[in-house]
Amino acid sequence: MRTVEWRESRVRLIDQRQLPWALAYAEYDDYRDLAQAITDGVVRGAQAVGVAAAFGMALAAQQSTALDIGSTLEFLDVAAVILKKSHAPAAYLIQCVDRMLRTGRDESLANVREIKAAMFAEAQKIADEDAAANQKISAVGLRLIKSGDTILLHADMGTLAAVEYGTGVGMVRAAIAGGRRVKVLVTESRPGLQGARLTAWELSDCGVPFEVIPDSAAGYFMHRRQVDLVLVGAYRVAANGDVINRIGSYPLAVLARENRVPFYAVAPLSAFDPSLVTGESAPLEEGSPSEVREPYGNTLMPPQFPVRNPQFEVIPQRYLAGIVTEGGLLLPPFRETLEKAANGNTTGNAINTGGTQAKP
Amino acid sequence: MRTVEWRESRVRLIDQRQLPWALAYAEYDDYRDLAQAITDGVVRGAQAVGVAAAFGMALAAQQSTALDIGSTLEFLDVAAVILKKSHAPAAYLIQCVDRMLRTGRDESLANVREIKAAMFAEAQKIADEDAAANQKISAVGLRLIKSGDTILLHADMGTLAAVEYGTGVGMVRAAIAGGRRVKVLVTESRPGLQGARLTAWELSDCGVPFEVIPDSAAGYFMHRRQVDLVLVGAYRVAANGDVINRIGSYPLAVLARENRVPFYAVAPLSAFDPSLVTGESAPLEEGSPSEVREPYGNTLMPPQFPVRNPQFEVIPQRYLAGIVTEGGLLLPPFRETLEKAANGNTTGNAINTGGTQAKP
Repeated sequence: MRTVEWRESRVRLIDQRQLPWALAYAEYDDYRDLAQAITDGVVRGAQAVGVAAAFGMALAAQQSTALDIGSTLEFLDVAAVILKKSHAPAAYLIQCVDRMLRTGRDESLANVREIKAAMFAEAQKIADEDAAANQKISAVGLRLIKSGDTILLHADMGTLAAVEYGTGVGMVRAAIAGGRRVKVLVTESRPGLQGARLTAWELSDCGVPFEVIPDSAAGYFMHRRQVDLVLVGAYRVAANGDVINRIGSYPLAVLARENRVPFYAVAPLSAFDPSLVTGESAPLEEGSPSEVREPYGNTLMPPQFPVRNPQFEVIPQRYLAGIVTEGGLLLPPFRETLEKAANGNTTGNAINTGGTQAKP
Repeated sequence: MRTVEWRESRVRLIDQRQLPWALAYAEYDDYRDLAQAITDGVVRGAQAVGVAAAFGMALAAQQSTALDIGSTLEFLDVAAVILKKSHAPAAYLIQCVDRMLRTGRDESLANVREIKAAMFAEAQKIADEDAAANQKISAVGLRLIKSGDTILLHADMGTLAAVEYGTGVGMVRAAIAGGRRVKVLVTESRPGLQGARLTAWELSDCGVPFEVIPDSAAGYFMHRRQVDLVLVGAYRVAANGDVINRIGSYPLAVLARENRVPFYAVAPLSAFDPSLVTGESAPLEEGSPSEVREPYGNTLMPPQFPVRNPQFEVIPQRYLAGIVTEGGLLLPPFRETLEKAANGNTTGNAINTGGTQAKP
């Protein structure tokens, strides 16, 4: 199962808004509709959104009716602006779109037909690199899991946040495939309910024993020594190792340290953003109040109640036992290990998706 | 506004299940119906439930058709068993029912009519003592609040959990009445949404500026120094000062200490249970899975997803800056200050509702 796929000249997405109630797909042959789908949350998760935007650029190339290279590139520039605006600023989305633009501008391409072909191939390559990175992450993270462990997962950590395999769910799948008996507690992850709707659905789909808990109950289980390992994703990783992730991650980090439960972030190196000196300097936007009051049409509180809806927060690096990446298990001091891993994994392009490991 | 009231030979409750959508009342003239109402959550909160059960005993006395004292007392014994069973074991509920039984058995009462009158008077006295305790709590807690403070409240801390005034909401009301400018953040308090439904409704009703936040967002605001004081209730207080309260309280305690935000429990001395050596020895029951999956009829996740629903948890006493009671602001070491406050506040009966202070 891939969350984002190219199928017969169209981009096919799993419509995540309909999960866990229905596994439905949506197809796009216009990059503007795809951009709107990203804005609407049809596809979610930093990796999946980045790959969707890359395919959006390939769609734009396909749509362009310009006959000369100059006009084609102008058309692509417009598409890039629209796709970058489709989502709150995410490093990976921007990297993916810029990489696609560079591909189109490659001077070795002789004509418009070659540009279109190259852009389709590059989008596919980004998707494959991303899938390979996640597969590698699962293998790297496996060493953290013992048979009998109960693993706490937060928010969207499955295939749906990526292209394939997933991060935390990928590790759990790898553990079970390796014959280890594990159990998962997954936070419902208010306000968006990504844990209850997406991660739980994937765990259920692949037969992993799991239980959904309210976010408020995580401390209860940690304090009673019923959690052996806490895994969270990483939307962005700063140069010093601070992790920016879905709201509710920082409390889990603090509770884990207080109760001596190992706490790891799991993320592809593409989430590493060396331009971000520390997590505290990242702009954090608030989401729609209606997500808090009426998640997926369920009215939990009256519309006149004022609410706050921070979407992301910083996990200061001192709370992390490590970061699981396709470049290996990174341990503190993160500033050094992150740089080393990032350099060891680039192949001349700006996106550290672990291309080197992905190749046979 | 009283949550539990005797009105024309009936017990009137605010139907808390209908809030914040409607302020509706339910009336009972049969103690068995009242017991069922307690079970069904028409009335919630340790104090309100205890007072409701006391009135339930007064109702039972009124209902009894026995003509002799012996048969009347037998009828009351049955009612006591049924009322005690109406709710998960709560120290205050049991104390209230036992106090009512002792009242009925008072040998100075000459006949059945006198027993009925004494029991009605005693239930009313319990309600008045409880209201007085809460009013005193608000006055005691006032010293913790400075003008300009943002106060974080968790779960049900208003009038609705008590009989009148409330605990945390009472303190906020007293601060505003005293001319201090304060703002409240209230956790929605999943799974039961007591914060979003009850505390927020009361704050809204009395014009206090507030914002509801998902439980997962409390760390975000504390980490950004946007919270000056955290208040939680106390369902039970153990002899060593450990507090048992609504799920989600322990994470707030840990986050508050980590971010150096003062953290206090607010509770009447009736919550103090010297028979409980530490909080860890208290039995903690799980609630219905449907509360997690379908709060108030809103289907948030599929019925086949396994869930866990712990209702209460322990806040170890070392996280508490103090406990606000009608007997004063108790500071560590709690074992000593709790004993002193409890002894200073009893007037010969077993319920420490601050009867001494309540009298003019």
